[in-house]
Amino acid sequence: MKQLTAGIIIIGNEILSGRTKETNSNFIAKELIKIGVKLIKISVIPDEKKEIIKNVICFHKKFDYVFTTGGIGPTHDDITSESVAKAFKKKYRVNAKALKILKDYYPVGKINSGRIKMAKLPVSSELILNPLTGAPGFKLKNVYVLPGVPIIMKKMFKSLLKNLKKNKPKKIITINTNLFESIIAQPLTKIQKKYSDCEIGSYPYFNFSKKKGGVNITISSWKRDDLSIISNEIIKNISLLGGKSFIV
Amino acid sequence: MKQLTAGIIIIGNEILSGRTKETNSNFIAKELIKIGVKLIKISVIPDEKKEIIKNVICFHKKFDYVFTTGGIGPTHDDITSESVAKAFKKKYRVNAKALKILKDYYPVGKINSGRIKMAKLPVSSELILNPLTGAPGFKLKNVYVLPGVPIIMKKMFKSLLKNLKKNKPKKIITINTNLFESIIAQPLTKIQKKYSDCEIGSYPYFNFSKKKGGVNITISSWKRDDLSIISNEIIKNISLLGGKSFIV
Repeated sequence: MKQLTAGIIIIGNEILSGRTKETNSNFIAKELIKIGVKLIKISVIPDEKKEIIKNVICFHKKFDYVFTTGGIGPTHDDITSESVAKAFKKKYRVNAKALKILKDYYPVGKINSGRIKMAKLPVSSELILNPLTGAPGFKLKNVYVLPGVPIIMKKMFKSLLKNLKKNKPKKIITINTNLFESIIAQPLTKIQKKYSDCEIGSYPYFNFSKKKGGVNITISSWKRDDLSIISNEIIKNISLLGGKSFIV
Repeated sequence: MKQLTAGIIIIGNEILSGRTKETNSNFIAKELIKIGVKLIKISVIPDEKKEIIKNVICFHKKFDYVFTTGGIGPTHDDITSESVAKAFKKKYRVNAKALKILKDYYPVGKINSGRIKMAKLPVSSELILNPLTGAPGFKLKNVYVLPGVPIIMKKMFKSLLKNLKKNKPKKIITINTNLFESIIAQPLTKIQKKYSDCEIGSYPYFNFSKKKGGVNITISSWKRDDLSIISNEIIKNISLLGGKSFIV
């Protein structure tokens, strides 16, 4: 089975200035791994047409699925839709279905230029409905264009999930140990070499005030169903080194 | 004055799998803007040599400063230092000063292969000292290689800050309004066109259970010292549209 892949493009000066903590990519990452899609790259880029176009084309060619967040609102700095149109050499114009949604959403007669702007999409896009604030996202080829506001993005992502191809989710086991990472490093390297169809990750943590710490060791695989032979080997090695461990 | 620029490369499968919430880039972003350095791009990439090499070379050429986080620990999946050496065609070997730091940090006789690995760096790197867990980061050309554990990365970043060139910090004013973004969009566009030496950002938020929401409007500039003429114009427009506003 071919590994399905994805990339995420986060569009917004507010992330690069540090004003806003970016949380959308973590949400999407967790959803993708559950449906067997491997996230390969996340790029955070500014609200600049040239950058958006370049990244959209590059991600479109490289990955099965591309998700963008940010820049589809009513203001002058919302240039994602126009840039995606340019990336695919499509016309950028008012989508009748999107306009109807917006007209129905706002009070009668309250449509204005900012609201109409949110109905402007690349020609031949499919709408991604927004159950919260009307203005839709859209899909063009393998690119899913979503808003940046997390509560709205999440709802829309959940609804588009049903249309994505699904593979076997990645199997993961996490083992916690109180050993230092530099103590367990050598046996982990040996075990990783022995089982090349899985990925062993090692994530230390520290609590300096309590002078405590340890490591979370993850064993994960897209291919292998049973990871217990590997986790048992790691647990045995932790014990030989005088450490404690448990499956998280 | 030339605008100083930066890029961040976050290295780690644990971010792409959604296991770990990435917080280092937000910390670095906020520090950079204070010293007048413009962050242009953040890329999150997997623990793969080819990807690390490619991104390091690309960022090195594009930006004045490059910061990487992750992948400099003692385990097999820590391949950042080796990859940075390859990117710059430098030998990757034990740095005597780094080894001494590690020997002094660990109990006598407790140096092992994992710990020695953390002393292996590209030849001609400068060390970035780690006041918490011994193992240093390093600087090679314009690339600053830092660990992924946030508490350690932050300490090390703070200490390297003094060696970076500084420019005038970006001036920023934020105005909050209770108007919908689509109501204020049109005057904002006009004001943005009038003041091309500043950047007007518009960030809506929603509280659906309380049926409330509003927009934070930022006015920022690397060049202009006084933003009050612009903020006053925005505040006046909010008031004309029947909205409330205050400077955040």
